[in-house]
Amino acid sequence: MSPLPVESMDRYLQENLPASIEELKRLVAQKSISAQNLGLKECAELVANMLEKRGFHVKVNPTAGAPIVTAERKGRSDKTLLFYDHYDVQPPEPLELWLSEPFQPEERDGMLFGRGVSDNKGNIVNRLFAIDSMLDALGELPCAVKFLIEGEEEVSSANLEEFVFSHQTELKADACIWESGGVDQNDVPTQYLGLRGICYVELEVETASMDVHSGLGGTIFPNAAWKLVWALHSLKNEKEEILIDGFYDDVLPPSQEDLEFFKAMPDAAQDYRTRFGVKEFLQGMQGGFELNLAEAYKPSCTICGLTSGYQGKGSKTVLPARASAKIDFRLIPDQKPHRILELLRRHLDAHGFQDVKITDLGGEAPSKTSASHPFVQLVVDTAKEVYGVPMQIVPLSGGSGPNFIVQEALHVPIASLGAGYPGTGAHSPNENIRIADYLKSAQHIVRVLDAFGKD
Amino acid sequence: MSPLPVESMDRYLQENLPASIEELKRLVAQKSISAQNLGLKECAELVANMLEKRGFHVKVNPTAGAPIVTAERKGRSDKTLLFYDHYDVQPPEPLELWLSEPFQPEERDGMLFGRGVSDNKGNIVNRLFAIDSMLDALGELPCAVKFLIEGEEEVSSANLEEFVFSHQTELKADACIWESGGVDQNDVPTQYLGLRGICYVELEVETASMDVHSGLGGTIFPNAAWKLVWALHSLKNEKEEILIDGFYDDVLPPSQEDLEFFKAMPDAAQDYRTRFGVKEFLQGMQGGFELNLAEAYKPSCTICGLTSGYQGKGSKTVLPARASAKIDFRLIPDQKPHRILELLRRHLDAHGFQDVKITDLGGEAPSKTSASHPFVQLVVDTAKEVYGVPMQIVPLSGGSGPNFIVQEALHVPIASLGAGYPGTGAHSPNENIRIADYLKSAQHIVRVLDAFGKD
Repeated sequence: MSPLPVESMDRYLQENLPASIEELKRLVAQKSISAQNLGLKECAELVANMLEKRGFHVKVNPTAGAPIVTAERKGRSDKTLLFYDHYDVQPPEPLELWLSEPFQPEERDGMLFGRGVSDNKGNIVNRLFAIDSMLDALGELPCAVKFLIEGEEEVSSANLEEFVFSHQTELKADACIWESGGVDQNDVPTQYLGLRGICYVELEVETASMDVHSGLGGTIFPNAAWKLVWALHSLKNEKEEILIDGFYDDVLPPSQEDLEFFKAMPDAAQDYRTRFGVKEFLQGMQGGFELNLAEAYKPSCTICGLTSGYQGKGSKTVLPARASAKIDFRLIPDQKPHRILELLRRHLDAHGFQDVKITDLGGEAPSKTSASHPFVQLVVDTAKEVYGVPMQIVPLSGGSGPNFIVQEALHVPIASLGAGYPGTGAHSPNENIRIADYLKSAQHIVRVLDAFGKD
Repeated sequence: MSPLPVESMDRYLQENLPASIEELKRLVAQKSISAQNLGLKECAELVANMLEKRGFHVKVNPTAGAPIVTAERKGRSDKTLLFYDHYDVQPPEPLELWLSEPFQPEERDGMLFGRGVSDNKGNIVNRLFAIDSMLDALGELPCAVKFLIEGEEEVSSANLEEFVFSHQTELKADACIWESGGVDQNDVPTQYLGLRGICYVELEVETASMDVHSGLGGTIFPNAAWKLVWALHSLKNEKEEILIDGFYDDVLPPSQEDLEFFKAMPDAAQDYRTRFGVKEFLQGMQGGFELNLAEAYKPSCTICGLTSGYQGKGSKTVLPARASAKIDFRLIPDQKPHRILELLRRHLDAHGFQDVKITDLGGEAPSKTSASHPFVQLVVDTAKEVYGVPMQIVPLSGGSGPNFIVQEALHVPIASLGAGYPGTGAHSPNENIRIADYLKSAQHIVRVLDAFGKD
């Protein structure tokens, strides 16, 4: 008696796991840092080659920024599943905190380390790995599969919106699997049904044409660093209240259904304390529901970086002529990034900071798929066979991404799954995945495609 | 008829000017960055050799930090003049703004460019140049001359106090010439009779053991950059009022004599606007007396540098675990740096910033010599023959230095002179001296030594 296809696929995945990890290593070794415009075309070509090897019809579409890779392969059923992923990665800095080279991936203790192994190259290769097992067992795919793989996700997907809206027919699908996902601290797989939006800006102040000896200028010249500090202080107070007039106007409260999902989530407090060395949470939060809700369903104003004057060792007595800060605002339904930009400019002008320049480094609107959509249920339920439990639903995730574009342009439900775990360190030094998670994620994709084709 | 000695010395200076500039270039080429502990011993040896060549009895005294060079040569009279100088320099950053290499000095348009040509290597070689001319003309010095040349002036002279107090006999002198000086924007030589004090600190905040994705931590984890901004904001408001309780308690008002000197100083406003590209002065000051007084006779709280999180190109969505600021407080009589440190700690604790760490990067008390001292008058009057006008007296200069140590340990009057000018760019890129000023400064030293020996 021949094995059931899904068992045959599982065996394939087991046997070919080392080869898939090797393929992932090659993809990680190709630097593709969108914030620094490094290696993007080369990485797009590499991804395109990997898709062509699986018999996909592939296009590397030029844009004003990084190329967007699209791919399609027909399947047994007419239904189409679209995978959204991205081949760009975050900058690896601070380099001195990495235990191995960020672009020379290394296996240690059942984990694979390297920039992008989790976010998002690991998931790209993981989807291909699942597809390999289905082609091996069935000779074809159970449904049509499309890929939309961009190279600017880490810099707010500046060229995705125009591309997706002008390729609606080519990208048409019945459902979409988003870039990432994984298990929580209890190894329960998690279904993220939405993402916060983002508005990322750089604030810059220039008060003179050159730095000046602080003994000369300290009491008579404007100081760019002080101006920046005062401007920043006007944006958020120590109670974590964002002070920009109108900032909260478009915020919708979470639904009762959403609140129930947040209540059902496990307590992350101890895990966060251990993993990140955080001694306390903001505003006296202890963990549980209030922490889960605040992590995702609350808008933020985060200083991501500060730069001014002398930053070397020891002392240098200098009055800085220039100072800048990088700031991200995370947005929840129905806040919109362009509106936040307007409010920020108005706020700075009203508070005497007309000379603080704002550079828009990218914005994305928040978006959500309803937990009751049948496709969401399919993805949630198929997890049980792999993980022993169905997926835990999280109505909104704290991160951001361009899923609002896909949702608005293609009108598809969007679910998520992937090979991550809480210690994955996306955007941090020593980014990693656990290889056991990587295998399970591929097994889950096999079951989603299988069920979706039959559906 | 043989020429008068002073004319013979002037001729020597004219003829040997190129050779002295070459010697200065060699001294500048020897890096000696105290903030980075670079090249200090090598530079001390080089300075020692230069003094030995002039027949000085030289010692290179080890300290816990950079060596202190002391030197002595007897003269015709028993009176002793002490020169205080320093062989260390400020870091050259930002390197990209230099038009020539900071440690490869270059002559252009009658100027010499390089880190330290003005502050303070130019003056070291300039004093030796003047001494050369006197030895050439007289075969001896008109008075005894001592040198005290340290290598940590740019990092608050951490080891000078102990050294000077334990070498009071060796350093005993009747008067002291301080490291620097020069002409103002109208080419009038300036006599600085004191320096503000300084208290230089680094403030550091650490809120987690690693940077975290801002999409995860932005609304639940403390942010080191925000804590720093709030802590800094508590130190000084937009009206330039320093908010540390007790900060102004020991401030003495300027004397009526001092105020008259400040009123007699020329208006620096247009020069500052042109030179530094400053569009406005603090608190609506327009220039003249109020600007001159505020520049020197007012305590400051200056942010010299800010560091946190991602500072590269573009965006990185990260919640910084660490943030730091470098701050200098300039102090006026009778503020003391150790007291300011205590008040700062108390202030931060009282405002909820117990977790903001203070690192003391050096302190110096303010000090002043009275304008009516005969030695001051000698230095002021001898300038007239060289510059056409006597020196303009400035009761206090905005900068800082360890002259309080020399004054307290050796009980000497301290005057100043040197080869600088307002465009000299000390502590900035393209530091330079005008070679014509360098010649005049040496001529002035010759006349000071001559008059002091006869006095």
